[in-house]
Amino acid sequence: MELAQNSYPIVVERGVLDRLSALTDTKRKVLVVTDDGVPEKWVRKVLAQFPKAAAVTVAQGEGAKSFPVFQSLCEKLLSLRFTRSDAVIALGGGVVGDLAGFAAASYMRGIGFINLPTTVLSQVDSSIGGKVAINLNGIKNCVGAFYQPELVAVDLDTLSTLPPRHISNGLVEAVKAGLLGDSGLFELFEAEGIESRMEEIIHRSLAVKRSVVEQDAREKNLRKLLNLGHTIGHGVESVYGLEGGGQLLHGEAVAVGMLPMLDGEALKSRVEQVFAKLSIDPHFPYDRERVAQAIASDKKAHGDKITVVRVREPGEAYLEELSLGELQERVRKLA
Amino acid sequence: MELAQNSYPIVVERGVLDRLSALTDTKRKVLVVTDDGVPEKWVRKVLAQFPKAAAVTVAQGEGAKSFPVFQSLCEKLLSLRFTRSDAVIALGGGVVGDLAGFAAASYMRGIGFINLPTTVLSQVDSSIGGKVAINLNGIKNCVGAFYQPELVAVDLDTLSTLPPRHISNGLVEAVKAGLLGDSGLFELFEAEGIESRMEEIIHRSLAVKRSVVEQDAREKNLRKLLNLGHTIGHGVESVYGLEGGGQLLHGEAVAVGMLPMLDGEALKSRVEQVFAKLSIDPHFPYDRERVAQAIASDKKAHGDKITVVRVREPGEAYLEELSLGELQERVRKLA
Repeated sequence: MELAQNSYPIVVERGVLDRLSALTDTKRKVLVVTDDGVPEKWVRKVLAQFPKAAAVTVAQGEGAKSFPVFQSLCEKLLSLRFTRSDAVIALGGGVVGDLAGFAAASYMRGIGFINLPTTVLSQVDSSIGGKVAINLNGIKNCVGAFYQPELVAVDLDTLSTLPPRHISNGLVEAVKAGLLGDSGLFELFEAEGIESRMEEIIHRSLAVKRSVVEQDAREKNLRKLLNLGHTIGHGVESVYGLEGGGQLLHGEAVAVGMLPMLDGEALKSRVEQVFAKLSIDPHFPYDRERVAQAIASDKKAHGDKITVVRVREPGEAYLEELSLGELQERVRKLA
Repeated sequence: MELAQNSYPIVVERGVLDRLSALTDTKRKVLVVTDDGVPEKWVRKVLAQFPKAAAVTVAQGEGAKSFPVFQSLCEKLLSLRFTRSDAVIALGGGVVGDLAGFAAASYMRGIGFINLPTTVLSQVDSSIGGKVAINLNGIKNCVGAFYQPELVAVDLDTLSTLPPRHISNGLVEAVKAGLLGDSGLFELFEAEGIESRMEEIIHRSLAVKRSVVEQDAREKNLRKLLNLGHTIGHGVESVYGLEGGGQLLHGEAVAVGMLPMLDGEALKSRVEQVFAKLSIDPHFPYDRERVAQAIASDKKAHGDKITVVRVREPGEAYLEELSLGELQERVRKLA
């Protein structure tokens, strides 16, 4: 990743979790943050390579992205006397990356941060791009920072322990990447044998995201493209997601939010077929009014304006600026 | 201030608090954060210029730089539905600037931030440079960010309501600026009539700081010069400051920490005379051992290394890297 302020390597490689010493200084102190859904074997593998490692395991799920857990991580770093030369390692999915990353960004105004994503969702999307955050009063990612990791290492072997529903959940972000910037990637999902192409799918998804982030790290404009499906999707997720008392995973909510952003029936039908293959239901029946209300808290809103991302055809996305009221009206009217 | 990522104006002008609409967009929402030591007249003046303003008043002192107060500011911004186009305004001293700035830096990963410093300390030093933070478990500025304001407006009129002890406290940072980068500024303190030269003192102090920060916004190296007196000073402050149950103000502690960093008796004596004029006691009798312990938590330590700033003569400072143990040993041995 090449950025004005700092650049960092993104390594995608089977078995890379065994070779961290070739990629980073393993002699300093590290705090490995993981969650209780991450299999012990990955945690042990990482800890074994850092003689001065400590570990914190948080509860699985968005609930860990809270003020109390964030504070406890900062207190842990302080009690272990971490300095700016030391590092926080996130080992897990997007929740762990967001939480650990915000602690790394904030403790002493920023120490080292290494992201080792173990889910498809985090491997294709959330581990790169430098967004870290915790939630507040039900609003996702309400408090956070733009903070770049020193290193992102993606080990495809970790997917062997991931349930199929979570694999599909993550692949929604890969479908998104294809729709907004790589028609060939989208077509991989229309062809046979998605499972055998995972490595290529992850590579190409990261390439789309990297290219966008490199051009706009702080979300001034172009980067908004990455929000395809996320404006309505976050609204759906805040009501029906694991936090809202529902069951929808992030990618499942984003799929719901993506469909109304597609131009024309032909494209809609292609995307519906891809989601069907992934056992994702983009027509999840949600309460239009509740979701319209939830969207009003979207952090990408600027004053009364909100930018949504639309897709003309795979690989061709564009931005549309609406008033919040217009967007809410559209959501209320969705069939 | 000219930085790679963003530049912002620093306006030093009597009465500028009455003319904010010429400097910033007063139509958006703003949250004015102030403390109960800031005279009402300044608060009213600012609020009157922003039709969509809300205000939060925190208790005076370092205690406000806490996790609960930080969280409550974020919650306030959320309940008022602030977006990235809105802004937080700090009106007060360094505490208010650090706290409000960290909320602005973190809410929605960063919204607008305007700093209106009303104390000498914040006017000559803390309001510029982009460091914001809260404290944790007695460690100052343990959790924070590098975040640049959109605007810093310094109104010298606000000093009319500031007690003399607080004026001297702030001037220690101006003496520091002179010692590290502007011998003429230091000599102003050796001449008669400091009070009549306040405007020049503030201008020149800011110029020193600006020049250093512009060259090194994220404290990689050169910026460390600004820590002159602060390594031992923060240790003294954590034990004898208002938070440590003592009485020393920040500048008073920094003066104590500055003296051992001066090369040669001649320079020491000149600086002692300046501090005497300001009624500052750089020989405050502190417990060497307790302060040596406190220094171990300094966030500028890198692994076992810590960089201190030494002064050869006014305007000529240099960096010295020590092991933490060596520095602690020196503190223990200070006469």
